[in-house]
Amino acid sequence: MTGKQGSTADETAIPVVDMRRPRWGDPARVTELPAAAAALAGDATEDRGVAPEAVTPPAQTVPSAVRADLEALVGTEHVVGSDDARVQHTRGYSTPDLLRLRIGDASDAPDLVVYPADHDEVVRILQICAAAKVAVVPFTGGTSVVGGLAPDRAGFDGVVSLDLRRLDRLVEIDEISRVATLEAGLRGSAAEALLRERGWTLGHFPQSYEGAGIGGYAATRSAGQSSAGYGRFDEMVEGLVLATPRGTVELGTAPRSAAGPDLRQLILGSEGAFGVITSVRLRVRPAPATRLFDGWRFDSFADGATALRRLAQDGPLPTVIRLSDEVETAINLADPAQLGGESTGCLVVTGYEGEEREVLRRRDAASEVLVDAGGTALGTGPGESWRTGRFAGPYLRDPLLDAGVLVETLETVTYWSKLHELRASVTAAITDTLTGAGSGASGPNVTASGTPPLVMCHISHVYSSGASLYFTVVAPFGADPIAEWAAAKTAANAAIRATGASITHHHAIGRDHRDAYHDEIGPLALEALRAVKATVDPDGVCNPGILI
Amino acid sequence: MTGKQGSTADETAIPVVDMRRPRWGDPARVTELPAAAAALAGDATEDRGVAPEAVTPPAQTVPSAVRADLEALVGTEHVVGSDDARVQHTRGYSTPDLLRLRIGDASDAPDLVVYPADHDEVVRILQICAAAKVAVVPFTGGTSVVGGLAPDRAGFDGVVSLDLRRLDRLVEIDEISRVATLEAGLRGSAAEALLRERGWTLGHFPQSYEGAGIGGYAATRSAGQSSAGYGRFDEMVEGLVLATPRGTVELGTAPRSAAGPDLRQLILGSEGAFGVITSVRLRVRPAPATRLFDGWRFDSFADGATALRRLAQDGPLPTVIRLSDEVETAINLADPAQLGGESTGCLVVTGYEGEEREVLRRRDAASEVLVDAGGTALGTGPGESWRTGRFAGPYLRDPLLDAGVLVETLETVTYWSKLHELRASVTAAITDTLTGAGSGASGPNVTASGTPPLVMCHISHVYSSGASLYFTVVAPFGADPIAEWAAAKTAANAAIRATGASITHHHAIGRDHRDAYHDEIGPLALEALRAVKATVDPDGVCNPGILI
Repeated sequence: MTGKQGSTADETAIPVVDMRRPRWGDPARVTELPAAAAALAGDATEDRGVAPEAVTPPAQTVPSAVRADLEALVGTEHVVGSDDARVQHTRGYSTPDLLRLRIGDASDAPDLVVYPADHDEVVRILQICAAAKVAVVPFTGGTSVVGGLAPDRAGFDGVVSLDLRRLDRLVEIDEISRVATLEAGLRGSAAEALLRERGWTLGHFPQSYEGAGIGGYAATRSAGQSSAGYGRFDEMVEGLVLATPRGTVELGTAPRSAAGPDLRQLILGSEGAFGVITSVRLRVRPAPATRLFDGWRFDSFADGATALRRLAQDGPLPTVIRLSDEVETAINLADPAQLGGESTGCLVVTGYEGEEREVLRRRDAASEVLVDAGGTALGTGPGESWRTGRFAGPYLRDPLLDAGVLVETLETVTYWSKLHELRASVTAAITDTLTGAGSGASGPNVTASGTPPLVMCHISHVYSSGASLYFTVVAPFGADPIAEWAAAKTAANAAIRATGASITHHHAIGRDHRDAYHDEIGPLALEALRAVKATVDPDGVCNPGILI
Repeated sequence: MTGKQGSTADETAIPVVDMRRPRWGDPARVTELPAAAAALAGDATEDRGVAPEAVTPPAQTVPSAVRADLEALVGTEHVVGSDDARVQHTRGYSTPDLLRLRIGDASDAPDLVVYPADHDEVVRILQICAAAKVAVVPFTGGTSVVGGLAPDRAGFDGVVSLDLRRLDRLVEIDEISRVATLEAGLRGSAAEALLRERGWTLGHFPQSYEGAGIGGYAATRSAGQSSAGYGRFDEMVEGLVLATPRGTVELGTAPRSAAGPDLRQLILGSEGAFGVITSVRLRVRPAPATRLFDGWRFDSFADGATALRRLAQDGPLPTVIRLSDEVETAINLADPAQLGGESTGCLVVTGYEGEEREVLRRRDAASEVLVDAGGTALGTGPGESWRTGRFAGPYLRDPLLDAGVLVETLETVTYWSKLHELRASVTAAITDTLTGAGSGASGPNVTASGTPPLVMCHISHVYSSGASLYFTVVAPFGADPIAEWAAAKTAANAAIRATGASITHHHAIGRDHRDAYHDEIGPLALEALRAVKATVDPDGVCNPGILI
């Protein structure tokens, strides 16, 4: 979803936002529903649900002796059990998460929120909680959309949310080697600001950028909008430090090595199940002097995908490269006519960042490929429009929910040869489920005015061998939106796995993708992961029920 | 070590070689010692040691019932217990390995060599051996230089060498996604030939290319001479299939994914300790239409390293990029005067492969950087000389040993900011140990004519954040060359770890680097690896004593 409102001309202008659940993002940037989106809402009445301050979490269950130990360790003021703090650390930002809070359900609230000062305190907190059988959820930005912050409480004497916001230092920059050590609690936007002051950039701009933190990026294998140029977050990680109930694991002796398995890759993506990542050493790049964003029109998604594949396989790769399908193209452009042609066609956005001469050279070479592949240049307008609006999309979710329309996203990744089958299959699974197709009856997700669900798709991350597919679903909801979406999501997951694709490209596993993940890696690999967990977390208190 | 003899103009001209231990490579290409190298040998007498056919391995210990089970599974002709087969599967190609066979020591010989036909037979062999407490060593090219083929027999009823040469199929090419599935027993050169027939290349050319196999590349995280352009072998792997005593693990659903830890990276580099990799799905590229190799002169290693760093960090990266220090430059050039200047200086070789226009563009842009960094262009002569001789170096090892001179290599990798400290420290450690410096006495590794050991160094693999260092040591040996080298190697390992570098960039761990490796990853990570091994190999029969 790529709205156009907002004025985020530059990612360095994005402040660190203390988001207030259930609504997304900077309270100062709360948006009204644009006319185009309001039309989707049909005749639904506005209903903002239970106010967050009226939501009451369940009674605390962490033993008082444990709380006293934690207070003695980190200071009384850094152990908070208020309703507000607990609600603000409840679940993440998936649509079901938002819907649950809107009906006043804070059943997944942690009992306590603990704010450690440093790595050693994190290790000690894990040890205290392990001894007391209290579960621990690492928390940076709280922006999970896969249930990664809602552990399984069964068998535990409570849940502690371990909020890392005090681990917020840029520890060191090695300018010769272009690596920077950042603490895990730094929000992405704060990390970027610290690096920019010194002339560097991380180049990691996921849509969660306003809220998400460095530790979360690492624990979930985040991928940002500029992944073609700067790489996925896991590719940026040169080293990391993990706190576990059994002590510290420190990895990343050298950039690359043949010294056994790459254990960094065992911790990246572990989603708190093996402990808490407290700092990472990251590759940095010079802050770009120049950037240019262009728009291109292709007649079809297939033509656009072929063009992207050519750039991914033979280069040159832009810094940003995206392809929207016909539906997303039509919805997101204020004036789809600007694409010309008989039909709307499909919009490709290309962005180039770096030193001016190199940017121009790369843009020329990529443009030559895009023209050869059938693209029509649209100039910088649509590209700049995407760039300035790229963090605005999520702000539409709350007003749409208020108006009875759910908007949710899901994503996957596969090889190029399977991409079109995957897209067709997932689109059909979602659409059919939401409209009740196949049951012979009209489904719940059609308004009285007959507006059906919209299923949009784009490619935003490309590799030599394949690409991601990102789906945005906008659908009016009926009496039980949580169940309605759950059915669509289940159908989408089944379609993804049936084509052999991965259950997630960058949203991670959490609880929502757990079953599909276990199917994806198979029983013996899962057993090996459980053996690793049993080694570093023998009491199983680290984010139980997440991932494994 | 980069000799100049031989006529290997193209890697596709390199046949699959059935190397005959202890000597390296194609028997047809056995070489005489060039005059320059003969000088190093001083007045030593030629001694070729015990002939391989005269080496007798110890009595077999695998129970006959186990042998019968294996024969029933794979066929009698595919279970071989001859002295010749056992000697040919004994250890690898490190200098101590060669020296031991030269004195008739085949104490590490496997009891049986088994040649399975496919993945399922590999699983069954592992199960038969696990039940019987017989250790299993996977074997493709047998070119390990770190003791990766010499498991610890203690506690086992024998050792089986599992030779994968019958798993030699190119299973599938997905030309849209540019991935090819290759069986693990394919030699690198055979795999390349199969791919070239269809217009593709893997682009993986380690110095072991004539002998080493696909499974070995994956199990040891090999890196080839063209890693700057084609990537390390681990970067090429999109998927893999692992046979374990507890069944099969199949990984690589998608090119990249946020579905938990990247478990491919747990198997890559596992060196047979978790089972046997039986096939890999690899990224392939179009076979290059054009290639160009250039030589450049830099005044010093530091200047050359800065130039390489600029290319690695800001591009464009050549396909091949190497920097030799002053000693290696002087030794390897037939006519060092061709470099001009007061001193020999340091040779940089750059190579570019691909489509012609892109090759020329990349070469122009890289040359501009090299000139700006102080390099003097030497034309294509030295580059082509390196390219055509690049697989010839190891052929010098045997004649040098015959003449009383050991030649051995070791390698490491670190961040750019630590590179020069690492080089100085390792060079000093080796030189001091071999000459007995510090003990007040002249060491053993100086000939009667006073020739001291030569320690040469080059950079051959570069990353944004760091680079490899590869050392070649040439030293006359005394009465106990195995002990003399062991002392130097121990000192080098200590120097590597003391500067915080990794114990290996692409040679892997085996038994020789095990202690340093355990120091490098720390006790808790080691415990996690052992937990993984206990899960997939509960009887511990998979290459015991290797890695973990």
